[in-house]
Amino acid sequence: MKLSSVKILIFFSISVFFTLRMEAQKPFSEEDALFIKNIFDTSLEEGKAYFWLTNLSENIGGRLAGSPQAAAAVEYTRQEMEKLNLDTVLLQPCMVPHWVRGEKEQVRVVNSNKMGTVDLDALALGNSVGTGPLGITAEVIEVKSLKEVEELGREKIEGKIVFYNRPFDNTQLRTFYAYGKAVDQRVYGPAKAAEYGAVATIVRSMTGKLDDVPHTGVTVYEKEDQKIPAVAISTMDANLLSRLLSEEPVKVFVRTTCENLPKKVSYNVIGEIKGSEFPDEIIVVGGHLDSWDVGGGAHDDGAGCVHSMDVLNLLKMLDYRPKRTIRAVMFMNEENGLAGGLEYAKVSNEKGEKHIFGLESDAGGFTPQGFSCDAENDVFVDLFQKLNEWLPLLEPYNLHLNKGGSGADIGPLKSQLGLLCGLRPDSQRYFDYHHTADDTIEAVHPRELALGSAAMTALVFLVDKYGLN
Amino acid sequence: MKLSSVKILIFFSISVFFTLRMEAQKPFSEEDALFIKNIFDTSLEEGKAYFWLTNLSENIGGRLAGSPQAAAAVEYTRQEMEKLNLDTVLLQPCMVPHWVRGEKEQVRVVNSNKMGTVDLDALALGNSVGTGPLGITAEVIEVKSLKEVEELGREKIEGKIVFYNRPFDNTQLRTFYAYGKAVDQRVYGPAKAAEYGAVATIVRSMTGKLDDVPHTGVTVYEKEDQKIPAVAISTMDANLLSRLLSEEPVKVFVRTTCENLPKKVSYNVIGEIKGSEFPDEIIVVGGHLDSWDVGGGAHDDGAGCVHSMDVLNLLKMLDYRPKRTIRAVMFMNEENGLAGGLEYAKVSNEKGEKHIFGLESDAGGFTPQGFSCDAENDVFVDLFQKLNEWLPLLEPYNLHLNKGGSGADIGPLKSQLGLLCGLRPDSQRYFDYHHTADDTIEAVHPRELALGSAAMTALVFLVDKYGLN
Repeated sequence: MKLSSVKILIFFSISVFFTLRMEAQKPFSEEDALFIKNIFDTSLEEGKAYFWLTNLSENIGGRLAGSPQAAAAVEYTRQEMEKLNLDTVLLQPCMVPHWVRGEKEQVRVVNSNKMGTVDLDALALGNSVGTGPLGITAEVIEVKSLKEVEELGREKIEGKIVFYNRPFDNTQLRTFYAYGKAVDQRVYGPAKAAEYGAVATIVRSMTGKLDDVPHTGVTVYEKEDQKIPAVAISTMDANLLSRLLSEEPVKVFVRTTCENLPKKVSYNVIGEIKGSEFPDEIIVVGGHLDSWDVGGGAHDDGAGCVHSMDVLNLLKMLDYRPKRTIRAVMFMNEENGLAGGLEYAKVSNEKGEKHIFGLESDAGGFTPQGFSCDAENDVFVDLFQKLNEWLPLLEPYNLHLNKGGSGADIGPLKSQLGLLCGLRPDSQRYFDYHHTADDTIEAVHPRELALGSAAMTALVFLVDKYGLN
Repeated sequence: MKLSSVKILIFFSISVFFTLRMEAQKPFSEEDALFIKNIFDTSLEEGKAYFWLTNLSENIGGRLAGSPQAAAAVEYTRQEMEKLNLDTVLLQPCMVPHWVRGEKEQVRVVNSNKMGTVDLDALALGNSVGTGPLGITAEVIEVKSLKEVEELGREKIEGKIVFYNRPFDNTQLRTFYAYGKAVDQRVYGPAKAAEYGAVATIVRSMTGKLDDVPHTGVTVYEKEDQKIPAVAISTMDANLLSRLLSEEPVKVFVRTTCENLPKKVSYNVIGEIKGSEFPDEIIVVGGHLDSWDVGGGAHDDGAGCVHSMDVLNLLKMLDYRPKRTIRAVMFMNEENGLAGGLEYAKVSNEKGEKHIFGLESDAGGFTPQGFSCDAENDVFVDLFQKLNEWLPLLEPYNLHLNKGGSGADIGPLKSQLGLLCGLRPDSQRYFDYHHTADDTIEAVHPRELALGSAAMTALVFLVDKYGLN
């Protein structure tokens, strides 16, 4: 694109904020548009999100609940929030699971007629048990669904390694939907296979991208006898294994030494600015501080944490004094237990608090496209309509509103009958990195991240200024 | 983000297309929504854009007008369009400038008291003259604008190297606006400095990113005596040079061997499907086939070319028979002359053609956010309103409409009184790569690119089916 067309672009961009037709009855003022512009300008030029995220994802790194890195992340975010001159910064204890990966996983096709011995790129699934030091070797059976395991029955499954290989539906515009349609294989597949006598489970990594990168993530056993080892392999290796299985019986060797250690105490990290007029109306913004142990947890969910801290930071930088109480919460243990989110809601309910608004960022640090909004049925329509009245202030920033989920950590607050929203960034690249060694600061663009902070701050500002009644 | 929140997302995503309330008076049908979904599905799963772009940007590479690579790109896209079973594929000749970079540029701070000798990362500006084999050494004077050169006058400028160092305004949400506010330094700065006796010009690279990567791009001389050598240096080196200048006088050595060779014949590559009902109503989609010589011209503007070819490809794959004539044009020489765009319009005008709609992609292969729309004043309101009637079909794909520029290549068609649009992708990362050695296939995400093809195809389909009257 060259100068002539840029000139035309500029012509139409002049003072976009002043062309909003601010009629008398509009539920916002011209000053609001200016303040939101200040929020975006400040975030793009002076926001701290990228600086914080670099420390969190690179200098601290992967930080699964119970790990030393998780403890470091708690202390780091506590210290950083204390520098923001908030009214309160505190740690809220919660008991978290403590799963450790152990030695590097070995997953290996053995003695194939076609290919000999082939190492597969693999990661143990979080919460899964290990194979023991000698590993397991067994024949592999490929399935596309949990239902297929049931249909095949014990006769076909017993003694085998079940290989779940249903790929992402790449026609889903929003990649989270593709994830949602595939992830039952990882979460419930191992337990289901165990019910029919499988000795281990291999799952195709949860991504639509074809590459060598394995994706970890939680699996769930409901009974003690469902605890068989479970690993994810890369999508390239899943395709390889599937092709091989179409030609000959295949045996795979799996060795993992992961284990669940006793629960530990960890913490939500909470920073608060007390409301000057309605201190009992609470607005919470949050992300989860824990991440998987591989990679740096940059998009998932370091981005959400630094977005949330930046909401308080930007409001402070702009000398905004909130009417309502605004909290930023770094939730602990979203990935494999949700202990932090549950504890936060429990304590809040016990205190009789009312969260009028919750906003979580847990979908990455990409360019924001808007917010998805959730609430109990009785109150949703009114709350969502109120939000939509502010759309003319948000649309100049390419921010739109839709119905949808908010976030796992704030979800338990729904019974307080407030509005819950999730930041909704562009999702196209998210599952390239999700739960992998590649989820590092290099995968995050500083401007895209800063736009997320600004988007959240703008919405928090409007809710704080006008309330949701 | 974990399973519980994904489930909620899915709940709301079910059959988004069927929840569009299709009332009788709506200017589109339920089938249109389904067809557009087919377009997106097909593009995401079977589109050819990424495959073509890999060949264009990696196997052919940078392809400045007049270069062997530009000739290869003409032949490659001609061959690929011939495979699409179109009604016509042809080459349209045009005369293009032939600038060559020559040897690697040398730009070097010499004999600084503070730093000794320091090499700066630099690229000659397109169209600029060389220094001659011995290079030029002169004292540097830093300015922030062309106006400042005028104010300083010949006394301060004569015999010096003028260093334009006004940075991007990073508060601009859309990075193209920041480019538009800075690029006069590169385009007109050297000629202006020459008017006041400068011997060479150094320009801060056109990006808001702080790194070591120099950005080339065109400069324009209006008179023979304005032809002084001109280079761009990286933003890191611009900051370094500026700091050094604040402490001591600085001399810089510049050596470039670039030159303008005689004009050459080159070609626009045109593929066409003849309209079955209104063949005289022409719809054109396009990008520019030339790129700068460094890098692979992947985002600028290989993406636009493969987007445009994919429009025809996707319509063919979906067995769509257009009512109107649809052309894909790979325009030649947008970067340093616009010969292709001007020639296309000239020939079209001579034939008395009417382009009812033009759509250019020249803003990168990132996630599309919609279209910017332009037309002559007399007709703009009606045409833009017609387009807006289709918004309910576009918004589910995060596509929005606004007034703005279309594209440099199709701009000359404006006098035919049709509607001209530009694809408007997310712009945050564009100027990390623009006109640099980093504009390669690695900078392009396959899904983001495919969404651009689909967005363009959807809009072309609607214009074709319903017209713009």
